[in-house]
Amino acid sequence: MSRSSFASSDSARSARPLRYARVARFGPLRLKLGGRLPEVNIAYETWGRLNRARDNAILICHALSGDSHVARHTPRDDPGWWEAVVGPGKAIDPRRYYVICANTLGGCRGTTGPNSVNPKTGERYGADFPAITIADIVEVQKRLVDRLGVKVLLGVVGGSMGGHQVLEWATRHPRRVRGALAVATSPRLTMQAIAFDVVGRNAILRDPHFHGGQYYDEKSGPDVGLALARMLGHITYLSRQAMQEKFAADRLRPRDVATEFEKKFSVGSYLAYQGTRFVERFDANSYNTLSMAMDRFNLGATPAKLRARLARSRCQWLVLSFTSDWLFPPEQSREIVHALLALGRSVTYCNVQSTCGHDAFLLEENLATYGEMIRAFLARLSGSKETKPAKGDDDAYALRPTNFYHRVDYDRIARFIPRGAGVLDVGCGPGGLLWRLKRRGHSPLMGVELNEADLVTCARRGIDAVQADVNEGLGVFRDGQFDFVVLSLALQVIRNVKGVLLDAARVGRRVIVSFPNFACHRFLGMLTQNGRMPRTSGLLPFEWHNTPNIRYLTISDFDVFCRKYGFRVHQRVGLDTETGREARGDINRLADLALFVVSR
Amino acid sequence: MSRSSFASSDSARSARPLRYARVARFGPLRLKLGGRLPEVNIAYETWGRLNRARDNAILICHALSGDSHVARHTPRDDPGWWEAVVGPGKAIDPRRYYVICANTLGGCRGTTGPNSVNPKTGERYGADFPAITIADIVEVQKRLVDRLGVKVLLGVVGGSMGGHQVLEWATRHPRRVRGALAVATSPRLTMQAIAFDVVGRNAILRDPHFHGGQYYDEKSGPDVGLALARMLGHITYLSRQAMQEKFAADRLRPRDVATEFEKKFSVGSYLAYQGTRFVERFDANSYNTLSMAMDRFNLGATPAKLRARLARSRCQWLVLSFTSDWLFPPEQSREIVHALLALGRSVTYCNVQSTCGHDAFLLEENLATYGEMIRAFLARLSGSKETKPAKGDDDAYALRPTNFYHRVDYDRIARFIPRGAGVLDVGCGPGGLLWRLKRRGHSPLMGVELNEADLVTCARRGIDAVQADVNEGLGVFRDGQFDFVVLSLALQVIRNVKGVLLDAARVGRRVIVSFPNFACHRFLGMLTQNGRMPRTSGLLPFEWHNTPNIRYLTISDFDVFCRKYGFRVHQRVGLDTETGREARGDINRLADLALFVVSR
Repeated sequence: MSRSSFASSDSARSARPLRYARVARFGPLRLKLGGRLPEVNIAYETWGRLNRARDNAILICHALSGDSHVARHTPRDDPGWWEAVVGPGKAIDPRRYYVICANTLGGCRGTTGPNSVNPKTGERYGADFPAITIADIVEVQKRLVDRLGVKVLLGVVGGSMGGHQVLEWATRHPRRVRGALAVATSPRLTMQAIAFDVVGRNAILRDPHFHGGQYYDEKSGPDVGLALARMLGHITYLSRQAMQEKFAADRLRPRDVATEFEKKFSVGSYLAYQGTRFVERFDANSYNTLSMAMDRFNLGATPAKLRARLARSRCQWLVLSFTSDWLFPPEQSREIVHALLALGRSVTYCNVQSTCGHDAFLLEENLATYGEMIRAFLARLSGSKETKPAKGDDDAYALRPTNFYHRVDYDRIARFIPRGAGVLDVGCGPGGLLWRLKRRGHSPLMGVELNEADLVTCARRGIDAVQADVNEGLGVFRDGQFDFVVLSLALQVIRNVKGVLLDAARVGRRVIVSFPNFACHRFLGMLTQNGRMPRTSGLLPFEWHNTPNIRYLTISDFDVFCRKYGFRVHQRVGLDTETGREARGDINRLADLALFVVSR
Repeated sequence: MSRSSFASSDSARSARPLRYARVARFGPLRLKLGGRLPEVNIAYETWGRLNRARDNAILICHALSGDSHVARHTPRDDPGWWEAVVGPGKAIDPRRYYVICANTLGGCRGTTGPNSVNPKTGERYGADFPAITIADIVEVQKRLVDRLGVKVLLGVVGGSMGGHQVLEWATRHPRRVRGALAVATSPRLTMQAIAFDVVGRNAILRDPHFHGGQYYDEKSGPDVGLALARMLGHITYLSRQAMQEKFAADRLRPRDVATEFEKKFSVGSYLAYQGTRFVERFDANSYNTLSMAMDRFNLGATPAKLRARLARSRCQWLVLSFTSDWLFPPEQSREIVHALLALGRSVTYCNVQSTCGHDAFLLEENLATYGEMIRAFLARLSGSKETKPAKGDDDAYALRPTNFYHRVDYDRIARFIPRGAGVLDVGCGPGGLLWRLKRRGHSPLMGVELNEADLVTCARRGIDAVQADVNEGLGVFRDGQFDFVVLSLALQVIRNVKGVLLDAARVGRRVIVSFPNFACHRFLGMLTQNGRMPRTSGLLPFEWHNTPNIRYLTISDFDVFCRKYGFRVHQRVGLDTETGREARGDINRLADLALFVVSR
């Protein structure tokens, strides 16, 4: 093995498409930054069949170092890079959908890129390959989709740089996309992520074997630089915790890896291995070309610009982030979600609890959430029966004490809301109220919920819900965006009550609030007679020390609150949940459950 | 500027000490990993004077790329690397302390390192410089301290790799250290931090100008590799947020920097500048030598091993971490703190709220907390009057409503505790109770508190307190470690009540709990007569929607709780805080404040 080169084959430099890939050939392409390619070849693979209506096609967009091989074609085939998600019985099922994945423009796996021969010169492009953008990558994909006879894609899905392509598709070709699935992505890279890319590119560009990018005919290429860039990439794909779990136990014991890199720590041999292997399958010029495309991508640097750009989209959205992803941190996914919410678009969002870092979207670990949400979202897009709730959801729902009582107040809340009115349900749980309203034809409907399992249930029910901590307010919604904002038995678990109520009254023309009334004679009786905090099998089933409730109030307290902070009270109802009847007269004494309709 | 070298001078390669540094010369040194140095020179600087008692010396240990120049010697002098902390009127004040800082062994600023001439060969060591450890660095510092006539260091202080040296000093030379100030450090690097070091070293080692480490007489050295390592370092020193604030606004506008590195983004030109400048002042072999010493450092990989190692220390401890530091993350500082707490050592800990990342400990931004804590800790060590509370502390203290009532129950709590008994105060606030007990001669005393400003006040009062969220339990303390654990008016703001109480009864032989009694006739009267949640100017001054209280209970509730979970009740007192008298008879109706002494 020579000092400067350790690639065992030149496969990455020879632009060879993968085993099952076909190649589609196209004419000249004008690039967004001014360059021009005289011809474009696209290497792609497909799974499943396009149906008669031609409405079951799903385009999968790969990340920087991916390729067209997203999943096995046969049981003996090499595994694909998204084997966890794509395949029979999996979230994206080729028995049902026509799945397309192409190597991106600028890549090195069969699609035109720096290692392709420029037909004008007969030489490889090398560093002469023009600068490209995510928009160019998507333009090339559109040509392919056209040729495959697909007018409208049921879904465009991708993670990381693949997610950038999803954002570009949805905003640049809004009539061609029914559903956008943006996974572990962002409107633009963080400065930290760009900084890592800068170091990686510098390692390649300043490698003495880079030869100004024309290394294809040289004895050796910038293999050390490319390997360093890849090592760096691998650090950013894993969370700190994942790295700890993977390497801390045998910290000082490197694996036996054939490498010329330092091999002093377990994590060192891992990085050396990853860097060494990468050079065998990837081209340094492609790395620079694609990482620059990613670094340049910017859907909008301010909330206003981002909204303006996303306003062009017409699709339904599923946005997924992962809690431990620090390369594409969740707050960046939330920027997208917030813009879509402000625009009143159909969007479902979950920040999936995971310790796996950016890599999480490729792994089996969190499929129960992210796989199920992708499955449910696609089923809903294709109008499948799966959009109805899975059997048992309702039973599980009834088992949870607060949810049982949600039902009691849901009846009354539903009566407050005129048919067809738009509703935001804050703390929507598994979506019981929204589901009921959906069947009654209300629109728009949107839920806000913190619990991940509840969000999966909402997705199965075909209800849009976004994960958020209500205490941070509803700032993302526009003034008067909904006819009604509902806080059903939510007030008592909210810390920032005043802030949330003021915000709710800004976002909704009416706000419906329900809460246990602590002044109810039944509760006070327990306090005065037993000298103990009230507990009932119904509304207050918990003990003082383990209840989720952190706020205690009475109907009179809420009356005073409304007067003090300028809320108009339109309806004021007290229920006796034991008899199921409405209380009359001194409801502050008689009712254990209060319902208010207010505005401001 | 040549392609492969851009160092404008060879200062870093020539081992030249800094302007104000003196050099102390020593004989042979046997190294921990088996190597041997025939002689050792130490470049060091001092500020202030050693007093007659020789007990005012503070040793400052620098981080990887630092040197002996910690602060200006004269107003016209170049600023030092810890100018924020060291200087007249600052936290470490040379008018009061004799401050010593030496370039570390293996460095390149005058102390023996790879760029020094090996007297045996007459050649520079280069890559032949033996592998060193943090222990070797400390051994060399000890020789210097001996020569300066200092028997016992009042304090050893350092951040990052400097903190590793502090840990080593305190555990290896326990009789030489009165106070250890470990800042932004860890018992060992995370695997992620090692991974970054691995990539940095590989960039140097695989630079074709590395020449096997013997590049001193070559035309050019591994400047590109060293610059890449430094760029990487800079990314890890800043938080993601700090990078965003620094570079996002002019994302695409690089500064005009003379560099041969990529200059396409604002952050790119910053990294290029940092990398380029570093090569002018640092030696690549030193970088590898010191980063390996850091990567190898391991004070104990398990809690038990860490405890065993820290058990050797005899000093008082101040541990400081920074919330946004992801290179030396706060949980690693907490490992040290937890071990010290389990050992019953005197320790103060604060996780300083900061957005500046690892660099925070060098910056002015958070001096109000970390600077003040260093100042107060040193004052306490030197027995200064400053250990008494600053004037006004008590007034500020009385202004906070809960604290006013702390005083009421403090009198009673102090009466429950026999003279001299050890006390852990959970939710100690600014340390009012502990201060009172300290004046009465109790020991050990320890506080747990979340509020940063309160922790600074505790430090000023010379009281040990550690920052922690009580909801996570008291798992770090040993069974029966304290005579008393106090939860004074804390129960009602704790979510995990049962867990905390069980843990308190494990850690303390007795637990003292005080809480507002919700069944008090005064509170119930407000509920039944006004129909509103009780509010008083005293114990319950907040409204239902903005109170910090999240738990409501009665004396009877607590009686039942104790029976159910096996707590023995030794004392059970009800106070009427309006009259200031103890309630007699039906205290569940008559008292608004309950005090229990329990055990389990």
